[in-house]
Amino acid sequence: MTAHARFPDDALAIARAYADGAFSARALIEATLARIDAHDAQVNAFTAVTRERALIAADTLDAQRARGDSLPPLAGVPFAAKNLFDIEGIATIAGSRVLANAPPATHDATLVARLVAQGAILVGALNMDEFAYGFTTENHHAGPCRNPHDLTRSAGGSSGGSAAAVAAGFVPVTLGTDTNGSVRVPASLCGVFGVKPTYGRLSRHGTYPFVASLDHMGAFARNVDDLAAIYDALQCADPLDPACAQRPFEAANAMHGALRVARLGGYFDDHANDDARAASLAAAEALGASQTVRYPDAEAARGAAFLITAAEGGQLHMENLRTRYDEREPLSRDRLIAGALLPAAWIVQAQRVRAALRMRVLELFEHYDVLVAPATPMVAPRIGDEFMDINGERLAVRPNLGLLTQPVSCLGLPVVAVPMRTQSGLPIAVQLIAPPWREDLAFEAARRLEAAQVAHCPPPPSFDEALLSSGADA
Amino acid sequence: MTAHARFPDDALAIARAYADGAFSARALIEATLARIDAHDAQVNAFTAVTRERALIAADTLDAQRARGDSLPPLAGVPFAAKNLFDIEGIATIAGSRVLANAPPATHDATLVARLVAQGAILVGALNMDEFAYGFTTENHHAGPCRNPHDLTRSAGGSSGGSAAAVAAGFVPVTLGTDTNGSVRVPASLCGVFGVKPTYGRLSRHGTYPFVASLDHMGAFARNVDDLAAIYDALQCADPLDPACAQRPFEAANAMHGALRVARLGGYFDDHANDDARAASLAAAEALGASQTVRYPDAEAARGAAFLITAAEGGQLHMENLRTRYDEREPLSRDRLIAGALLPAAWIVQAQRVRAALRMRVLELFEHYDVLVAPATPMVAPRIGDEFMDINGERLAVRPNLGLLTQPVSCLGLPVVAVPMRTQSGLPIAVQLIAPPWREDLAFEAARRLEAAQVAHCPPPPSFDEALLSSGADA
Repeated sequence: MTAHARFPDDALAIARAYADGAFSARALIEATLARIDAHDAQVNAFTAVTRERALIAADTLDAQRARGDSLPPLAGVPFAAKNLFDIEGIATIAGSRVLANAPPATHDATLVARLVAQGAILVGALNMDEFAYGFTTENHHAGPCRNPHDLTRSAGGSSGGSAAAVAAGFVPVTLGTDTNGSVRVPASLCGVFGVKPTYGRLSRHGTYPFVASLDHMGAFARNVDDLAAIYDALQCADPLDPACAQRPFEAANAMHGALRVARLGGYFDDHANDDARAASLAAAEALGASQTVRYPDAEAARGAAFLITAAEGGQLHMENLRTRYDEREPLSRDRLIAGALLPAAWIVQAQRVRAALRMRVLELFEHYDVLVAPATPMVAPRIGDEFMDINGERLAVRPNLGLLTQPVSCLGLPVVAVPMRTQSGLPIAVQLIAPPWREDLAFEAARRLEAAQVAHCPPPPSFDEALLSSGADA
Repeated sequence: MTAHARFPDDALAIARAYADGAFSARALIEATLARIDAHDAQVNAFTAVTRERALIAADTLDAQRARGDSLPPLAGVPFAAKNLFDIEGIATIAGSRVLANAPPATHDATLVARLVAQGAILVGALNMDEFAYGFTTENHHAGPCRNPHDLTRSAGGSSGGSAAAVAAGFVPVTLGTDTNGSVRVPASLCGVFGVKPTYGRLSRHGTYPFVASLDHMGAFARNVDDLAAIYDALQCADPLDPACAQRPFEAANAMHGALRVARLGGYFDDHANDDARAASLAAAEALGASQTVRYPDAEAARGAAFLITAAEGGQLHMENLRTRYDEREPLSRDRLIAGALLPAAWIVQAQRVRAALRMRVLELFEHYDVLVAPATPMVAPRIGDEFMDINGERLAVRPNLGLLTQPVSCLGLPVVAVPMRTQSGLPIAVQLIAPPWREDLAFEAARRLEAAQVAHCPPPPSFDEALLSSGADA
């Protein structure tokens, strides 16, 4: 089952075994780089591999261990970050050709630096939709990121490389971002765990921005304990991100008695196919959900998020949309221009809707600790597919894969995405949605799904011929 | 000097004398109503007089006093509120013909209720620019509000009736609102004290909204102690206004040692005529200001406020601008339509500018407790004037009277406006600007200007023939 016979697959297991002297960090990092070298040409999760830096970090750690120094809690854990996180010494391209010749970053992003400070070893930067606008990582500059469980299918987006790198067994944990679903959608399609914390929880300093009022930082892992450990390692107030200046540390791993859980019906069932609905029902049952409830005005929340995103994204990129249109991603450039030209009144109304809905959703949390919904309307679509059929409705894939995530992130609520089994065999995730600043409740529910063996993170593929025959040809 | 020989002019003096048994509340309220009846036809500050309610409240209070019950701290103090505050039993018209037939409000606005709970007696609703969009209260439906110190001149706006009612000696305190300067501009032109607290400090529940992210509640009075007492009486967290849900009470009247004061130059001098600049210099000198400093990018802050206001206001009123255009205020309807049609990208950029400037202004407050600037570029213009000349620049009066207030409210900073003497004899105010949530510093500086007799609130007019001959003819 394991990707590297000599090394554990998971982050905390690696840290424990490394601390016990089971292997050297150099051996682990060399094996990690070798696996990426051997198979990432098929997956296309990485856009840069920080080979030299990783080996130096490994040697430094090994020397530290040899001296008998105390080791930091994530010592030896390999990780990688979506390529919109600053990595000292390489250009932050944010998925765009427009930034291909940007000067190298002079510092690591705050979150990268936090993991490094705790002993984790950065091995590279990961593929994404251009400027994080998209749900499929069909990047025309870097090429599409392929789903490790079926290379003909999308890994989801915009943090597609981040989910695929974990699903492929390249690294146990990665960093991503989620503005409208960019952690949860790829977690769902690739079958890994993902967390999008409360808006304002994790520092965005040193990352390429998209939509100031919606951008969240997040992470991926293969199990709940790893995800919680990484999330806890990332938490800290950061005056360099004004939205993240004041919150004290709040451990993911709090103790809980009974959880009051409800399943979201209505919009969240109507836009879910059989796989997605079955996942939601299975999770709700395992968590003892007492009710199916309606999320107030999910359509309006989604509409608000859609308009605000297009308008803010359009404004942010106006200059290069004007002057470097031909270099911009064909799948999103026209949507951004349209967004920038929306009448101001629409954006004002969208912000009003958002504020009003937030109040109503907070009322729902007076009765429930966790709300359950599918993360995507269906399992991974094939790369290049333009349409999907959801309960008889034909929807464009690229803007609609996030239709179940947008109403939630629009209100800044924390979510843990948990991968589930499906009839088709391809993974799909549920969203476990908690009240603001209560990530601990979502983590607790995720842990229960894992303990009940209802959650299912498929093992990394072996990348044998059988898998390749399914059609990786681009 | 006093407006009513038998009664004090000021709020705290009234409350003390009433508690001492110097007069009955009925006598005071009858005299107040008589003065309004006799002279408000000239000033046009009131759009409704709540005669019956006021007399009932007075009799109730007198009975309470007669029984020897303890009296609330503002017992007997007459007040009035801008007509966008809900007053139980009358329509909240917000200065607009469009709302002339609105159903009567079923409750008092939170701030009205707070003053009533402390024994103050509401005597009416006050004139304003339609939907609070304007700086002159030249209301085409209710008629212009006239400046009590020269009836040919504007009282300022949009809370023109609130300032004029205090300046005329009708009531010692009033409530107003300030989105871009609507407390500070009329305080300046009418020569009274005004407070626009930190954004989020006072509850907006039960008031007609204008621009959610800029709307502030405020108050007017004839001296600093009255203003501080009213402001303190209004403070309370209110879950019904999401922006005002969490702040503890913080008394205006804290003790202070040396204040670090700076005068704002640059933009605030360039857009001030001799009267305005002299007021700013006199206040700065009296406060021992050590420096003249620049407010970062005041033009950009003002531009951002202007765009956000027009867009949000336009969106809010889109429906009646479409269907009831002829009934809308001719002085502002076209600006609102233009605002609603701005490209979304401009509003997004305006919000970005605002967030960035806020950080830079907070840095300024690491060095200073209070910043001094004029409140208006000049003394009260004549009603009907379309242009003013400021240092050789010809500017439209109506959108530009607030050009010194907009950069400040745009960042949510608390301000106390203090009236000063001028060479021309007409009043003008300075803004005393403090860091967020530090109203106490602005009040302390105001108290020092008052103690040094640099501040000057002109006595209420006698409304004799000499005054009338100056030209009230509309």
